[in-house]
Amino acid sequence: MGQPDEAVSQVRTAVRRLLTGAGATGEVAVAVSGGADSLALAAAARHVSRRLDLRVLGLVVDHGLQPGSDQVAGRAADQLRGLGLDEVRVLTTEVTGPGGVEAAARRARYAALRGARTPGTWVLLGHTRDDQAETVLLGLGRGSGPRSIAGMRPLDPPWARPLLAVSRATTVRACAALGLTPWQDPHNTDPAFTRVRLRHEALPLLEDVLRGGVADALARTAAQLREDNDALDALAADLLGRALNGATLDAAVLAAEPAALRRRAVRSWLTDQGVTDLTDAQLREVDELVGNWRGQGGVRLRGGLVAGRAHGRLGLDRAES
Amino acid sequence: MGQPDEAVSQVRTAVRRLLTGAGATGEVAVAVSGGADSLALAAAARHVSRRLDLRVLGLVVDHGLQPGSDQVAGRAADQLRGLGLDEVRVLTTEVTGPGGVEAAARRARYAALRGARTPGTWVLLGHTRDDQAETVLLGLGRGSGPRSIAGMRPLDPPWARPLLAVSRATTVRACAALGLTPWQDPHNTDPAFTRVRLRHEALPLLEDVLRGGVADALARTAAQLREDNDALDALAADLLGRALNGATLDAAVLAAEPAALRRRAVRSWLTDQGVTDLTDAQLREVDELVGNWRGQGGVRLRGGLVAGRAHGRLGLDRAES
Repeated sequence: MGQPDEAVSQVRTAVRRLLTGAGATGEVAVAVSGGADSLALAAAARHVSRRLDLRVLGLVVDHGLQPGSDQVAGRAADQLRGLGLDEVRVLTTEVTGPGGVEAAARRARYAALRGARTPGTWVLLGHTRDDQAETVLLGLGRGSGPRSIAGMRPLDPPWARPLLAVSRATTVRACAALGLTPWQDPHNTDPAFTRVRLRHEALPLLEDVLRGGVADALARTAAQLREDNDALDALAADLLGRALNGATLDAAVLAAEPAALRRRAVRSWLTDQGVTDLTDAQLREVDELVGNWRGQGGVRLRGGLVAGRAHGRLGLDRAES
Repeated sequence: MGQPDEAVSQVRTAVRRLLTGAGATGEVAVAVSGGADSLALAAAARHVSRRLDLRVLGLVVDHGLQPGSDQVAGRAADQLRGLGLDEVRVLTTEVTGPGGVEAAARRARYAALRGARTPGTWVLLGHTRDDQAETVLLGLGRGSGPRSIAGMRPLDPPWARPLLAVSRATTVRACAALGLTPWQDPHNTDPAFTRVRLRHEALPLLEDVLRGGVADALARTAAQLREDNDALDALAADLLGRALNGATLDAAVLAAEPAALRRRAVRSWLTDQGVTDLTDAQLREVDELVGNWRGQGGVRLRGGLVAGRAHGRLGLDRAES
């Protein structure tokens, strides 16, 4: 047997590193659509699992949204059996609920995968560096702050994404080297989807204007932002613990801290108290009860709640109707 | 006199808020290229300075890079005198030094402005929300982390940027309403400049794909990232103070903190010790002496320096040659 192809090696190394780092034991599941990314992932998982003494469960989701989706799923399942996975299952889902068919399909898929795996084990997902770059750009477009551009996490139990630093092109090359023919999802070229236009129009133009390396730069920035967010979240949780007294917050404890920590602690407090759909403007207004206190009135929030300050403490009350 | 135009009001409000918030007294300078953004800024500064009892100094930089640049500068100076600024000066500069003509012109311009203002006073710059969006995208393309996509600061003494939340289109409308004809810099349409292509190609496409609001979203994200960075920088400075002992760092003090704080503290320490051109990979390797210590050797850095760990402390030594 000769040297494995460079692309195949790269995918295997990424999967091995993640599984070793995550301390996977017993079994791992791989979610497979039949596309190049998840097919290359499944092949790599099968390869590295022998050394790591892991059982590999292949999971194919049939969303039942297009005629023939069962054939696509069946073909992917056959490919996984051909790769020698220990077990292969096709999961059928019902796509319902609010928020558009893309979001509903995503929810149904994740629920089916979560239900099918053995509790306590990881589910490997085939998201690549290009998916990460698209996610960061989508987050930027929403403008909902650092969290939205921090992208997907490599480890987010039960989900594990070993390929976040591997390009989509590498997974295509790996499949070709292994003699695997990936399924081409027609949705992946339908310009009705924002993500498709980001992939085929916006990112290539940015690559051209900024002279290359944009997908990599976006993925790298996302990784650093996640670290920053994790640090701030941990420090804000600590601050919240110190400021909390029953259901109220001590304004003096909050006031001594930087705005970014204060707002995170106030956001957690409001969410814990049942406030929903908090906007950035509302959060800033509540924070001004600490950071810019001049005796102002309470801040009206969703669900008939009002956040106000009295006797040096922030509290939440029902609005008078 | 009727109601002022809506665009004129918006620019004035932004300038008034910034000058009041910054506690400007005595004098402010305004840097003017003759373009719509800085011309609208100068007009607004003139207007609000009366109420705030401020003297307004107009500064026009002639880089001397194109034939006729002196005429462009002279015309801008005339417009400022026409607006009734208290004093107007044209500054001539010599553009030299490394890093391309754009970077050299920028350095020369900032040095001239800094030298011309009265010490202790602010210099207002006309950067708009669109400039901020371009800066964030440029930073993303470089991938040099959260700091590079946090954009420009509203207050960065002696520089003040009141228009970071005002669109370029608003400054154009404000000039039209005031009967001011801005200078159209031919560089602003030259696709040889990365920034020009971002402005005229990448941002409009992103606005289209992401259905609008991208410039605003980028500017808003940048503002939140600045707050996060400020908080982390402050906390890292505190950590550095606690870990520092002479010229070495206590690894145990660092190890108890989140990675994002630890790396910022280590970066400051290395920079303070004279390390230059530190790469992200080097920083991570030095940080592994704390976060992933397994008795490994030192990390070679620029300038013949090596960061290593001994007896629970990080120190910097000359490499043996």
